[in-house]
Amino acid sequence: MIEMDDIIASERFEAAAQALRDGHDRFVEDIVALTEIPSPPFKEETRAQAYEEMFRAHGLENVHRDGIGNVLGLRRGRGIGKMIAVAAHLDTVFPEGTDCTVRREGTKLFAPGIGDDTRGLAALLLFMRSLDAAGIETERDLLFVGNLGEEGKGDLRGTRFLFTEGEYRDKIEAFFTVDGLSLDTLTVGGVGSYRYHDDFKGPGGHSLMAFGTVNPAHAMAHVITGLSKLDVPAQPRTTYCASVMGGGTSINAIPNAVWLEVDLRSEDPAELEKLDAALHRLVEEGVDNENARGKTESGVISATPERIGNRPAGHTAMDSHLVQATTAALKAFGFEAKPEYSSTDANIPMSLGIPAVRLGSGGRGGREHSLEEWIDVEPEYSIKGLTAGLAAIIGTAGFRPDA
Amino acid sequence: MIEMDDIIASERFEAAAQALRDGHDRFVEDIVALTEIPSPPFKEETRAQAYEEMFRAHGLENVHRDGIGNVLGLRRGRGIGKMIAVAAHLDTVFPEGTDCTVRREGTKLFAPGIGDDTRGLAALLLFMRSLDAAGIETERDLLFVGNLGEEGKGDLRGTRFLFTEGEYRDKIEAFFTVDGLSLDTLTVGGVGSYRYHDDFKGPGGHSLMAFGTVNPAHAMAHVITGLSKLDVPAQPRTTYCASVMGGGTSINAIPNAVWLEVDLRSEDPAELEKLDAALHRLVEEGVDNENARGKTESGVISATPERIGNRPAGHTAMDSHLVQATTAALKAFGFEAKPEYSSTDANIPMSLGIPAVRLGSGGRGGREHSLEEWIDVEPEYSIKGLTAGLAAIIGTAGFRPDA
Repeated sequence: MIEMDDIIASERFEAAAQALRDGHDRFVEDIVALTEIPSPPFKEETRAQAYEEMFRAHGLENVHRDGIGNVLGLRRGRGIGKMIAVAAHLDTVFPEGTDCTVRREGTKLFAPGIGDDTRGLAALLLFMRSLDAAGIETERDLLFVGNLGEEGKGDLRGTRFLFTEGEYRDKIEAFFTVDGLSLDTLTVGGVGSYRYHDDFKGPGGHSLMAFGTVNPAHAMAHVITGLSKLDVPAQPRTTYCASVMGGGTSINAIPNAVWLEVDLRSEDPAELEKLDAALHRLVEEGVDNENARGKTESGVISATPERIGNRPAGHTAMDSHLVQATTAALKAFGFEAKPEYSSTDANIPMSLGIPAVRLGSGGRGGREHSLEEWIDVEPEYSIKGLTAGLAAIIGTAGFRPDA
Repeated sequence: MIEMDDIIASERFEAAAQALRDGHDRFVEDIVALTEIPSPPFKEETRAQAYEEMFRAHGLENVHRDGIGNVLGLRRGRGIGKMIAVAAHLDTVFPEGTDCTVRREGTKLFAPGIGDDTRGLAALLLFMRSLDAAGIETERDLLFVGNLGEEGKGDLRGTRFLFTEGEYRDKIEAFFTVDGLSLDTLTVGGVGSYRYHDDFKGPGGHSLMAFGTVNPAHAMAHVITGLSKLDVPAQPRTTYCASVMGGGTSINAIPNAVWLEVDLRSEDPAELEKLDAALHRLVEEGVDNENARGKTESGVISATPERIGNRPAGHTAMDSHLVQATTAALKAFGFEAKPEYSSTDANIPMSLGIPAVRLGSGGRGGREHSLEEWIDVEPEYSIKGLTAGLAAIIGTAGFRPDA
């Protein structure tokens, strides 16, 4: 393995870093242009079209959108047949109709989605241009990806498709998602989550006349109370949340339907499965208890927990080449690269045993997922982060400075 | 006490019954006219104005609307100073904008509110005309009332005003509410009810980051589960219902607010108070348990049960003159007059120890509280019920056929 110090010290890397510095203004222009193409959940197509054109303009090979709509483009390496995927997500959390006009104050740019993850999308383009300017040929191919569906109910569907159905699914050796800003943390573990919408139904009836009839709210309350008493480990971090609920029609009526949304998470797939089983047991118990307690002449309580979110847990070994090379690159530029768990597109490859990390795109910013989202493109710090990221990608893909 | 048989057999009563038969067509016209003046909850004023004019046209004394908006009018008796109130409620359950046009099919009339309680309002007018036509002078004065606020959140406020603040509050010796149709039941008991809207509040937080933070849904679930385990007597009939609930904002957030609406009822005031205390204890326990269980660094759970409905319980003695005279009158015309409990305007006087009953206005019908509400004004059965009701009122107010 080539040492990161040797890569960074090489002439070609210095040429790439110089190209990156020179290209920072255009990078900022790309951020603005892409941010101002709204990309609501499940409606990423317009931005995907524009991004595809940009991939093509950057000279990537086999540029196209895959079966689900991810934008793909290949930058060939020395032809050893394996590839490293470098992705950023196209979707934002903001609904259709959100004003995405970028407002600039000095080096600060304000707009919904500008940091999460439009800066990441623009970073990929800057990486391509810098590699080309320096004529760097990596050992492994680089697969650049603009993927769909990272946020919320998108449920990682773009990345899931890439790794389970996409044409490159068996070739990707490691995965970067360039998402978020800071390089002081490096995401090496994916918190897994299951999310449920659970409808509890019953016959309903008049609160006085039908008193004693089974009430679906009793079954739901059993689930909520049961969750609150679950013993979950602090390590691996495992959590539950009775989040959103509703039901009933009138104060003088036994409800015929109530519903509950639950969020279950764990850093550990086995713990997540245990938690999932516990939830299903509670739902079953709640239903059975209520059908045993109340009158069922006019109908029984039933429940249908529908899984509306599924983000698998996983992690990448600290001694993997990916984490080693990336950590070395970030530290070489003065970033902390503290390993952490979170929930990102990297969850999918991690859950499949494919090394993956979430890498920040550099710069500073804040208020992501709010209408006041901002980033600071002050060049020095912004460029330092981008250069560190580029080094991490080159180091992971393999590069012989002497070749 | 004059026997009901003597009253019914008297010439004057026969004259009244004849006037009632002759006046049935006009009675039907009055039902249609009043039904087509919408009278939504808390917006009874237009119908009240029209009804006030009708009272005036029927020659009642001191016709006016009282401090809350009930329509009042007096028909003097022999001047013994006491009075019997005969009421029907002006309000319907239907919101503003509901089409109240009456559709006729043979002797069936279809319109929202036509039976509940517009037929009752028209019945009062028919009673006045029949009494006048026969020159009947009752022992006690008759106070005719078109009252507000019987339905739902109206919370019996019209009748409550009449008996607690109105000018006649100390003079009313017995109370009829002419409400509903059938005379085969006679309401002699009022099911009392308390209704609550309970807000549970907490600090909220991210489902993963803030895991362990107190969750107001846990406190709410404790209340629902606790209610489901309460041991309430079947006699006197006592019921509870966790009816409507909601809360939370996002599946990945601990809710900062959830809410629950609860309906508590009993035929017995003491049992209703016990149930009320149990609910308050459960709310307190739910809050305390959750604050003991979870993290409260960013805030604690609190709950504020707001009483949004209050219908007192009560009953009228079976050996009271009111129940005796009314039962005799209904049975004389072949109705069953089976004593029952329900929740009507009669609750208020019952709770104050003033004899009160709910008396049907006769005829057949169905689907009350629905847009398909209907009544059948087929004359024979309709007139029989009205005549029985008139006999009950005359018998209660006192009448000497020989005087």
